[in-house]
Amino acid sequence: MAEEEKYVQAIVDKSQDFSGWYGDVVIQAQLADYAPVKGCMVIRPYGFGIWELMQSLLDARFKATGHQNAYFPLLIPESFLAKEAEHVEGFAPQVAWVTQGGEDRLEERLAIRPTSEAIICSMYSKWIDSWRDLPVLINQWCNVLRWEKVTRPFLRTTEFLWQEGHTAHRSEQEAEEEVLRMLGVYRDFIQEDLAIPVVPGRKTENEKFAGALRTYSVEALMGDGKGLQAATSHNLGQHFARVFNITFQDEDGERKFVWQTSWGLSTRMIGAVVMVHGDDAGLIIPPRIAPVQAIIVPIWRKDAEKEAVRATVEKVEASLKPAVRVRSDWSEHTPGWKFNEWELKGVPLRLEVGPRDVQKEQVVAVRRDNRAKEMVPWVKAPDRVPELLAEVQSSLFSRALAFREANTRNADILADFEEIIADQRGFVNAHWCGQTACELAIKERTGATIRCIPMDQAREEGECIYCRLPSHGRVVFARSY
Amino acid sequence: MAEEEKYVQAIVDKSQDFSGWYGDVVIQAQLADYAPVKGCMVIRPYGFGIWELMQSLLDARFKATGHQNAYFPLLIPESFLAKEAEHVEGFAPQVAWVTQGGEDRLEERLAIRPTSEAIICSMYSKWIDSWRDLPVLINQWCNVLRWEKVTRPFLRTTEFLWQEGHTAHRSEQEAEEEVLRMLGVYRDFIQEDLAIPVVPGRKTENEKFAGALRTYSVEALMGDGKGLQAATSHNLGQHFARVFNITFQDEDGERKFVWQTSWGLSTRMIGAVVMVHGDDAGLIIPPRIAPVQAIIVPIWRKDAEKEAVRATVEKVEASLKPAVRVRSDWSEHTPGWKFNEWELKGVPLRLEVGPRDVQKEQVVAVRRDNRAKEMVPWVKAPDRVPELLAEVQSSLFSRALAFREANTRNADILADFEEIIADQRGFVNAHWCGQTACELAIKERTGATIRCIPMDQAREEGECIYCRLPSHGRVVFARSY
Repeated sequence: MAEEEKYVQAIVDKSQDFSGWYGDVVIQAQLADYAPVKGCMVIRPYGFGIWELMQSLLDARFKATGHQNAYFPLLIPESFLAKEAEHVEGFAPQVAWVTQGGEDRLEERLAIRPTSEAIICSMYSKWIDSWRDLPVLINQWCNVLRWEKVTRPFLRTTEFLWQEGHTAHRSEQEAEEEVLRMLGVYRDFIQEDLAIPVVPGRKTENEKFAGALRTYSVEALMGDGKGLQAATSHNLGQHFARVFNITFQDEDGERKFVWQTSWGLSTRMIGAVVMVHGDDAGLIIPPRIAPVQAIIVPIWRKDAEKEAVRATVEKVEASLKPAVRVRSDWSEHTPGWKFNEWELKGVPLRLEVGPRDVQKEQVVAVRRDNRAKEMVPWVKAPDRVPELLAEVQSSLFSRALAFREANTRNADILADFEEIIADQRGFVNAHWCGQTACELAIKERTGATIRCIPMDQAREEGECIYCRLPSHGRVVFARSY
Repeated sequence: MAEEEKYVQAIVDKSQDFSGWYGDVVIQAQLADYAPVKGCMVIRPYGFGIWELMQSLLDARFKATGHQNAYFPLLIPESFLAKEAEHVEGFAPQVAWVTQGGEDRLEERLAIRPTSEAIICSMYSKWIDSWRDLPVLINQWCNVLRWEKVTRPFLRTTEFLWQEGHTAHRSEQEAEEEVLRMLGVYRDFIQEDLAIPVVPGRKTENEKFAGALRTYSVEALMGDGKGLQAATSHNLGQHFARVFNITFQDEDGERKFVWQTSWGLSTRMIGAVVMVHGDDAGLIIPPRIAPVQAIIVPIWRKDAEKEAVRATVEKVEASLKPAVRVRSDWSEHTPGWKFNEWELKGVPLRLEVGPRDVQKEQVVAVRRDNRAKEMVPWVKAPDRVPELLAEVQSSLFSRALAFREANTRNADILADFEEIIADQRGFVNAHWCGQTACELAIKERTGATIRCIPMDQAREEGECIYCRLPSHGRVVFARSY
């Protein structure tokens, strides 16, 4: 084995250039690559492995709350998209249009879905007839396209993968309950599975979904102090029901419009995981969504040692397999090179097995998050390794929460607000009068937007940081992705 | 409970009008619906539930053979598609073109992928550098678009869902091994999980994939005697490697082109399941891919009986849950209506629980495939129900195999061949000289095409059914979907 092999994948220093660091990590850990189509990316197997785990965990939560999956067409006739006025205004500038099919020039342009309300509503108006047909609780996992000017892998790309839930209900109250239920599903998924703390809240009128009555979101803080909208849940009211004529005969015999919701989460969350947990050595993937949870690195100098090490590695690997996504790295590289490579890839736990460990009947476990080392006797590995993974999961969340708390500040006057946003970033809790004009003026001046009006907003009398009109509680501002 | 409720979902008689029957079953069992976009369909939750199970079973087989999933862009620049001459010629007439993105008219048209060789090869040329990088074994699950003139739900639609594997290898032999390995994976999946017997074989030059060196397929026989290409596996040779410049430095220091394969299976297989197993009462879904494997139908006349029945149903349902996808139907319909409904939906096993069954501590199990009835004591249900499901699975396969055998005939002269194809359809084994001219003439004359040159083709001297030139074995002809 070559002793002097040097690990060459230098990545930019995170504290110096967060954006450069992010790009390096995404590319070098082989999460994704740039595609030869403007604004598009390829999700490589390692990145897609994370997405598959996210999908399976989130999908189980959807099914546990009574939702089923379906699949609706990619293409939406322009006239459908145009039915809901706010909706078309919000999305038309971002639509990719199909104008030619085979040899035929199309009579009506077809939009590649930027979101699927229009096509799904057209089907719901056909499927729903009686109160007995309600609620309709459908989700789809699919690709969507939004023509973007500035793109970054995962965070903003022309094409991305997501899920979009679309439900129809008998009453306004039922729809609102669904909207909040799914917001809670997102909060739990992101906090428990992705180890990212979020602030659930309501979006302002200005930031709500095009066509919605109300939008809720969960908001996260990235490692550079910028906010990121992690998922959204919309109460669509009867806006779409009225234009797509989705009605049902109620128990009282009356024909009524349904109440609808929609909610979504995308591959953007892979970018959030990178930005919240990563460090100068690369990715740190929370164990629950790590394609490889533990990597065994065999260490030997002489060929004579190799066989004993191999026997131990195989035994340990087999004993862990039922409960842990474990692999061993028998490539030709040096142990040092492997350590760097698997740290770059963010594998939560490294298990080293050298000749001395063979003798002592142990493995050396090294945590990726804090590099804490621990000798684990072979026989205890099947119990101890899952425990260590659970500890990494929970400590990643605690660390992210502590970071967010340290970077959440109150501001009561505009000068302080501007200084915080410019110098420290983070979340800034400030009073706001509720007027869109103030919201936009603050954005213009500082680049910060209202991320949300938090669900647990405490009543507190104050004055709008911009116009000094009275306010009864603080909202969360940040610069954002 | 209303006693006289009539089940109204009449479906066309299968033997009278197979095509009408197929359409009725697909729509009324709520597998899919027509979308308001030409040639597109919506896969409804019940149909998508089947697809999810197919995906999970097939994906496990891909992973067991060392493949990983990834995701490549939907849009392919026209110039990429044009690189491989046969490929573009084969697919260009079927491509949907994006010409406008947001406010911008695009300088180069973008194809919505009809298949992804072109975009994937462009990435492989970037990723592959050394023999150490090989093999590359990647699959993707995605939507594709092919502008079709005549469409039918699942069988031929403008947009469909599929998986496409794309691999790169060091040698021709390795690539050919992969092609045959994946053909075997498809054969096993379709026979074992979908209970559909298939003939694996090689496609003729005329029927091969546009751009491939050789195409293999597995061919199935539908209930109306027409053939259906169930999945394909292509040896791409170095065709794409040469035009996309995918090279690697081999161990001997030389720069060489890789050898590639691609292989795919689509939502078309849902249509195949309908056409192979269904009967006049509707769908029959093989248990392994049935979203609901057993439906419990409670039966009672007086309210006093209902509670005892409910207690039993709940007990039985709970005892089956760990091993069986089971549901109970407490809707307001009559038992007779429910029997019809769940038969239409093809649920493999019905479990009836009435007051007499409560007393006898049993359930009445009725198989969907042959309506065989059996009393199963409660305590034995957790063992017996999975056994019954396994029996349904295997008997569906046997029945389909017997049907295929009864509908596979030899023909040695053209008049017989024409008569069989016109009157009885089915697979016809006949001698063929190997010339495309004869193949096309037979197609022109009878509508039958060569489905494949079977892998287990027995050496047998004969004469081409069309030109009477010598032939050394029979090939499989059929009219096909």
